[in-house]
Amino acid sequence: MISIFKPKKIKDFNPEGLKIYTFNAGFKKKDKDLLLIIFDRIINVCCVYSKTSTPSAPIIWDKNNNKGKAKALIINSGNANAHTGKEGLYTIDNYVNALTKKIGCDVNKVLVSSTGVIGEKFNPNLIASKFKKLNSKNESSLLESAKAIMTTDTFPKVSIKNIKLDNHSFKIYGIAKGSGMIQPNMGTMLAYIFLECEVSNQLMKTLLKNNLDTTFNSITVDSDTSTSDTLMMFSVGNKKINLNKKNFKSLNNKIYELMNDLSLQVIKDGEGVSKLIIVNVSNARTKKQAKKIAFSIANSPLVKTAIAGEDANWGRVIMAIGKTKENINQNKIKVLFGNNIVCEKGSMSKKINTKNLDQYMKNNTIEINIKLNSGKFYHTVYGNDLNHEYLKINADYRS
Amino acid sequence: MISIFKPKKIKDFNPEGLKIYTFNAGFKKKDKDLLLIIFDRIINVCCVYSKTSTPSAPIIWDKNNNKGKAKALIINSGNANAHTGKEGLYTIDNYVNALTKKIGCDVNKVLVSSTGVIGEKFNPNLIASKFKKLNSKNESSLLESAKAIMTTDTFPKVSIKNIKLDNHSFKIYGIAKGSGMIQPNMGTMLAYIFLECEVSNQLMKTLLKNNLDTTFNSITVDSDTSTSDTLMMFSVGNKKINLNKKNFKSLNNKIYELMNDLSLQVIKDGEGVSKLIIVNVSNARTKKQAKKIAFSIANSPLVKTAIAGEDANWGRVIMAIGKTKENINQNKIKVLFGNNIVCEKGSMSKKINTKNLDQYMKNNTIEINIKLNSGKFYHTVYGNDLNHEYLKINADYRS
Repeated sequence: MISIFKPKKIKDFNPEGLKIYTFNAGFKKKDKDLLLIIFDRIINVCCVYSKTSTPSAPIIWDKNNNKGKAKALIINSGNANAHTGKEGLYTIDNYVNALTKKIGCDVNKVLVSSTGVIGEKFNPNLIASKFKKLNSKNESSLLESAKAIMTTDTFPKVSIKNIKLDNHSFKIYGIAKGSGMIQPNMGTMLAYIFLECEVSNQLMKTLLKNNLDTTFNSITVDSDTSTSDTLMMFSVGNKKINLNKKNFKSLNNKIYELMNDLSLQVIKDGEGVSKLIIVNVSNARTKKQAKKIAFSIANSPLVKTAIAGEDANWGRVIMAIGKTKENINQNKIKVLFGNNIVCEKGSMSKKINTKNLDQYMKNNTIEINIKLNSGKFYHTVYGNDLNHEYLKINADYRS
Repeated sequence: MISIFKPKKIKDFNPEGLKIYTFNAGFKKKDKDLLLIIFDRIINVCCVYSKTSTPSAPIIWDKNNNKGKAKALIINSGNANAHTGKEGLYTIDNYVNALTKKIGCDVNKVLVSSTGVIGEKFNPNLIASKFKKLNSKNESSLLESAKAIMTTDTFPKVSIKNIKLDNHSFKIYGIAKGSGMIQPNMGTMLAYIFLECEVSNQLMKTLLKNNLDTTFNSITVDSDTSTSDTLMMFSVGNKKINLNKKNFKSLNNKIYELMNDLSLQVIKDGEGVSKLIIVNVSNARTKKQAKKIAFSIANSPLVKTAIAGEDANWGRVIMAIGKTKENINQNKIKVLFGNNIVCEKGSMSKKINTKNLDQYMKNNTIEINIKLNSGKFYHTVYGNDLNHEYLKINADYRS
């Protein structure tokens, strides 16, 4: 079932400074399942990976090999190459060598990602054999690249932003894929961001650090964290911009917009989604407390099923706040669904308007606003509902 | 839909040393929803409560009032009296006073519990008015008491064990109710255990401490912790037993059996359950690590939906181990479904037998056995699958 949030039109373009190739390598029946990006020159890259203690082979491989420079990126979908032991690493060696021989670059300039089923090995030739055919017939656009990395996603995730700094106009753009096992650290299984300007590895690290917490690390589909979660930022353009304080701030803000857009697309295509849930926790004692409580609400199966049933069951919200065992004052909690107050001062609000509330719960996007009235910190988490469609997808995924 | 694990026959008896009264107070349409137990004399009681930071009024009230002695216990089902502010506490004062006037005992000898919808206030007279009719017509058995505290439970939970110490034969018995919001601390929303012998408060505390971690604190339906979770142990009998080392050990073992039985009944009646999932994690570095990993697996929506779909999707088990971010060696993990090996030494086992595995997954009880091969600690957690029935119950609960 295609997500109700699927954009009517998805932007596309053919980026400069890189060539995109997409193939069907046999992981999927007929759709594209292999993406190869070759950069015109060796560029800076900055990566963030899942904090899982059972990382996939591509994560282990990338961490061992890459030193912050990239010439090529290989991504396959349909098989995660996760928990495949040493053989999984040899598989990567094998198909990466096929590429480096073909294009003549060092192994440590190649990055790899995989997404799909965990635990199944595959023949590296599935990927390597495709590198023989790097011709214009296989060249693709940004949108096609997003399609090639989809698994249970129901729409490709692309974001393109324009920015002007010191009279230089350029683009920053990215692709991402979801759509189950979405929970930090690293919301998205896979996301790739490209900057059409020259940025050092150190500054890219800062840009990611500034924006990860409020974007990809604040989304959750089902509280499950993937073994493959990866985000990479590439400085693909050679526009030399003076990244003084003002320009850096502008770039940082634009990158936030891009990462926010991509991470929201992931959550809006969470498996089976029928409602987008935005949990705003404010007036917490600490930032950590706000985030913990927001995630507890967004991940609670009982809250998620209530929203699916269009039921403003705020008692379950109170339960989800309580189960964090955080130091809060129950009698100060104020809860609103959108602008509709449901409880305050420790019990149900006298101002509750059931008719308005019921109407509000029919919306596709539901905001749960929690004011803890205990401090000045806030955090927002994006999640979705738990419904029959999620079960259909996940009880039948492998079969 | 009635749980497939519902016992064919549920034992019953009329306990000595207490009188059980059950009523319909109007919280439920026609079923019994109020339980009153009056003990023949003032006895010792030991209580454990939910660690939630949004406790229900009965938990706040009990903690403020009770000093370890009990003459009466009042439990209503259908309304949790949770997040009801000061009024919720006044409601309890009100109906407890009605009882103490009637039977002539101190307020601090009365214990109260409530279970049901959160956030809705109720008129104390619903309960108080019933105390006018304490006659033999309303006297009930143990099984009837278990029925009166049910909410979405599909069968009443009763356990009765016989024990003989120093030629004294006597019973220990208990009742419990589930069946959503089941996750430690305190698996069961409500559980009451009665010992037909005299035990001090201090020793009861030890008995609970010895057995809670492996029973009620090792079950999970949906990772949601109730605002009302309560376990009480009453020393109801006046048999004076020399609780020397040997006798205490026997009593302790029997109490484990009872608590294990009751907690498993709760999990076997988890909302919508079609599979009981037993997660055994062994050879962990620490006890805490074994427990954390076992809960991560038992709570993972992706593992729970796979089991619902009878799919031995061990990749999701590896994911759930990884998402704990625990210090483990991925290449040493061994996973078995029952006796059927699926992975070892970091990847899929060569000994995997798909036919046997598929057959095994059809069972009502699925054991997931994880050997971490990193230490000597182990822990077992009991959970259940996530299926359409759970959603039906929880998307429609209030309406």
